[in-house]
Amino acid sequence: MLDLAIIGGGPAGLTAGLYATRGGLKNVVMFEKGFPGGQITSSSEIENYPGVANIMSGMDLMASWPEQCMRFGLKHNMAEVSRVSKREDGIFEIALLGGEKTEAKSVIICTGSSPKRANFEGENEFFGKGISTCATCDGFFYRNKEVVALGGGDSALEEALYLSHICSKVYLVHRRDSFRASPVTVEKVKNNPKIELILNSTVKQVYGDASGLNGIILLDKDKKERDLAVTGVFVFVGMNVNNSILRQDDGSFLCETNEAGNVIVNLKMHTSVSGLFAAGDIRIDSSKQVVCAAGDGATAGIEALEYVNH
Amino acid sequence: MLDLAIIGGGPAGLTAGLYATRGGLKNVVMFEKGFPGGQITSSSEIENYPGVANIMSGMDLMASWPEQCMRFGLKHNMAEVSRVSKREDGIFEIALLGGEKTEAKSVIICTGSSPKRANFEGENEFFGKGISTCATCDGFFYRNKEVVALGGGDSALEEALYLSHICSKVYLVHRRDSFRASPVTVEKVKNNPKIELILNSTVKQVYGDASGLNGIILLDKDKKERDLAVTGVFVFVGMNVNNSILRQDDGSFLCETNEAGNVIVNLKMHTSVSGLFAAGDIRIDSSKQVVCAAGDGATAGIEALEYVNH
Repeated sequence: MLDLAIIGGGPAGLTAGLYATRGGLKNVVMFEKGFPGGQITSSSEIENYPGVANIMSGMDLMASWPEQCMRFGLKHNMAEVSRVSKREDGIFEIALLGGEKTEAKSVIICTGSSPKRANFEGENEFFGKGISTCATCDGFFYRNKEVVALGGGDSALEEALYLSHICSKVYLVHRRDSFRASPVTVEKVKNNPKIELILNSTVKQVYGDASGLNGIILLDKDKKERDLAVTGVFVFVGMNVNNSILRQDDGSFLCETNEAGNVIVNLKMHTSVSGLFAAGDIRIDSSKQVVCAAGDGATAGIEALEYVNH
Repeated sequence: MLDLAIIGGGPAGLTAGLYATRGGLKNVVMFEKGFPGGQITSSSEIENYPGVANIMSGMDLMASWPEQCMRFGLKHNMAEVSRVSKREDGIFEIALLGGEKTEAKSVIICTGSSPKRANFEGENEFFGKGISTCATCDGFFYRNKEVVALGGGDSALEEALYLSHICSKVYLVHRRDSFRASPVTVEKVKNNPKIELILNSTVKQVYGDASGLNGIILLDKDKKERDLAVTGVFVFVGMNVNNSILRQDDGSFLCETNEAGNVIVNLKMHTSVSGLFAAGDIRIDSSKQVVCAAGDGATAGIEALEYVNH
């Protein structure tokens, strides 16, 4: 029987494990099928994690975290979790892919959310080297430069507005002739002199070289090409919330979620289910930053410790 | 007119400034009368800030933060703020000690909270060198050792329980013969074999040498002394919430607070007043950890940016 099962090995999961074990909790296992570090490890540059001043890759930023966070007894199980459920006796069951099951007194879920890919040529090749899915993270690297933002929903338009305060110009590319975003946001985008709308257009491909992205080729509805020599392309075509392991037999989620599938928490990272906590990008209103996920993880670790001990 | 006034220069304020300026906000000023860094700078050891693996002093941990966080245009004003208020036109007024006033479109308040001192001999001398006010932060440094916890309220008893899972023994010292804490918590403390209650007793003094604390001398109600050779003393005699600058002419606070005076926020660090955000130990349900305050600061910075730009 585990005292605490942590599902996910990004900044939230690692920090939760650090705090729970350093607080004296035994038998704490972090389930993460790959190397710990999370989504940030696919980012080529980060400079806004406070206390780490040098610009470095996400991989380098996270390199020291597993050793530090596992120093107090946190264990890493590379098995993939398929389901978390709670029995009537209050114990959680962690089902692993392959059929094995583990029991735990408490659970922190921090499996994150993943930006969807738009699936154009070169997108994966240049991901983290010119292709970004986060204006807050990477916008500053394109200060006073021209960039492309791709998408038509609320977050695409909000991210385009964010970029317009940093970049010299933002080409907002959308495949339809109108936006799904709220009318107020659409109006702000239309009135912003630094944003040029390119509607009814899709991305054919991006191109570049070893130093990164050099441009993007768009296709309009008549299949006419337009080549933009930008070094940054921001893709905002939706998020996948990694909540499938919370899905129960009857189709419902183990705890309350919002419409998008994000787990509803309070300021202490408590979910609607006693003993189940959530931290990082999987929760509602997450800022999707390493330092925010780590802060959530610390809080969730402290709260899980309190739950198990008392 | 400032775009954003940040009141307080700890991890929350610095990170808020980093995110707001890196996101393109101009005219952002952090008001902090002393050197930035916050309460953690009085701590002699920290090892649980993720990504900084070495054990170091709080001063060393924070040494690189001001430069990193001010790299994008954040300014530091060493004036002391006496009052924050909001005019009918939606603009905030920041009154400085001495009478000067500054205007700002948005405000982030992150002035923290300060643990109260118990005022015994040696308390200030050994603060951060054996005297602690945070079990989560420092308990682990006394693993398998005996410690003293001082206080009789809920948080004193909860911290004593926390310490009992790490330390070999916890002497819980309280000046009265009964506790103000909730009956459930009192029961847990009384049933915990690692906690010894020392009631009707006060601290005469602590003593030690250059390497830190060596012991504590207690006085019972008959003024009889008891000497305990502990190296750690945890003082939990209440918190001062640094919210006085929110107090208005009519005695009310600018925004909603709880009974203890902590600012009520949601997960996005919005207070009850539009354009006013709070971050770190001043807010309700804060975990009082550097990484949590920094996470709050990032969120508040992003939200203030959004508020000013749109």
